[in-house]
Amino acid sequence: MNTEWIAVDWGTSHLRAWAMQGDTVLDHAQCDRGMATLRRDQFQDALLTLVQGWLGAAPVDVIACGMVGARQGWVEAPYVAVPAKPISTVPVRVPGTDPRIRAFVVPGLKQDDPADVMRGEETQIAGYLSTRPHWDGVICLPGTHTKWVQVSAGEVVSFRTFMTGELFDLLGQHSVLKHSVGEGWDDDAFATAVADTLSKPEQLAGRLFGLRAADLLQGQDPATARARLSGALIGAELAATRPYWLGQQLAIIGAEALSNIYATALQQQGAFVETADATQATLAGLLLARTLTRQTA
Amino acid sequence: MNTEWIAVDWGTSHLRAWAMQGDTVLDHAQCDRGMATLRRDQFQDALLTLVQGWLGAAPVDVIACGMVGARQGWVEAPYVAVPAKPISTVPVRVPGTDPRIRAFVVPGLKQDDPADVMRGEETQIAGYLSTRPHWDGVICLPGTHTKWVQVSAGEVVSFRTFMTGELFDLLGQHSVLKHSVGEGWDDDAFATAVADTLSKPEQLAGRLFGLRAADLLQGQDPATARARLSGALIGAELAATRPYWLGQQLAIIGAEALSNIYATALQQQGAFVETADATQATLAGLLLARTLTRQTA
Repeated sequence: MNTEWIAVDWGTSHLRAWAMQGDTVLDHAQCDRGMATLRRDQFQDALLTLVQGWLGAAPVDVIACGMVGARQGWVEAPYVAVPAKPISTVPVRVPGTDPRIRAFVVPGLKQDDPADVMRGEETQIAGYLSTRPHWDGVICLPGTHTKWVQVSAGEVVSFRTFMTGELFDLLGQHSVLKHSVGEGWDDDAFATAVADTLSKPEQLAGRLFGLRAADLLQGQDPATARARLSGALIGAELAATRPYWLGQQLAIIGAEALSNIYATALQQQGAFVETADATQATLAGLLLARTLTRQTA
Repeated sequence: MNTEWIAVDWGTSHLRAWAMQGDTVLDHAQCDRGMATLRRDQFQDALLTLVQGWLGAAPVDVIACGMVGARQGWVEAPYVAVPAKPISTVPVRVPGTDPRIRAFVVPGLKQDDPADVMRGEETQIAGYLSTRPHWDGVICLPGTHTKWVQVSAGEVVSFRTFMTGELFDLLGQHSVLKHSVGEGWDDDAFATAVADTLSKPEQLAGRLFGLRAADLLQGQDPATARARLSGALIGAELAATRPYWLGQQLAIIGAEALSNIYATALQQQGAFVETADATQATLAGLLLARTLTRQTA
């Protein structure tokens, strides 16, 4: 195996790496040594432990995106203010690395008003756009912190972050609702909850405890409760983002299962939705970022 | 000290007891052996450990309210369906108790549509109304799970539960916002957040991550973030409960600090608010419940 460069997606909770030759994946590895688990002097060891089998005598480029570029990360890669291309500046070189690697971190994006930030999604957006040079529209990147991103003329114009995924986990696993929310799914319950919350978003605060009460009084199925909780939270997000998706060209970039849930909710509202694979977008974006580092090398 | 009866407020996380003579408090004790920490066969020991100094040769009545009456509690005290007086049936006798006590548990209330339940608040409502025989209006009982209760002709007509307190704790202490939310308070930030969320409740989902971004980009004061988080969540609750408080006679029963926060938010919307002490309301309600047990004895 002849690794030409290494692509790295390094988030809060996970580290994922790919051995690359051009745009071809030679190998893949991942572990749970996310940014939140590491001190600054531990990042290089965490990475080398994962990828040392891919290294040789000549230094290999490592191109990383995500929370690895935060102030508490491996190296701080300051945010670029929007409007801007998703990746507009050369990735930040990590100083003093092992001689077998030359490591770079892609900067995130920031927005002053309303205040918002992203790290990692800019790389997926760049990768998605790299094969669609004239694409204008809105990109939704669902996850722990879902992003809605308005793209025009190759630039990120504005974006908003929603804590929908984190709220779903907190409420389903750490609130009183954990006794009533279980595994499984219920398509009809999800669709009804999305529609109800979209039509009366101000009622969200009251719907949540209703999931507990429906269990106590009516023995509601835990799978139904899970779909209703997801539908209420995603419905609230769609109520807040209506100007982002109503009548817009729309793409969803994310993990397949979660992307399909968002696509279902949006299609129920009459939106036309395209979905794209998050990993492919990340790798295409990191390839683009690598090109920037080569131009200055 | 001659204890005539013992009043008990036994919730999920705490056990509080008062040695009573008529409506006079002789002594008070509390511990953290809440319902969630106990198996059914451990309730009596928990109580006796706390109150044994108040017991004598003759059996003493113990009147308890709260989650102690849940299915997993000391004895199940089935919910009474609304509309109903807050305490309309004789409290449920705990079987097989120590000969020094005769223990009773006040039933909670339930509502079929929308599904909702309460345990403990019915006793505070009964106590509040016991000195106001012709009071009609809406009672707000703020807490981990805030209740809004419509009262007419001495009966609870309808009610809704909001997980606002639990959401505030989960988001402030267990989400990504924990890095940005600290101690302290900011009156202006709270008022603005309440008003903003009330006027655009569908934007709540987007406001939350904004608290994190405002810290990262603008170094927002953690006390300001805390007040904004509280204001956003209470604003969302007030948006959902508008028919409950708009133009209604309104009373808040709760802990003083939290009641004052709710009163401030409601007064900013032009509502006229009376506040009442939660402990006094609980003791008055338990006294009333005791009267019911004596009538059947």
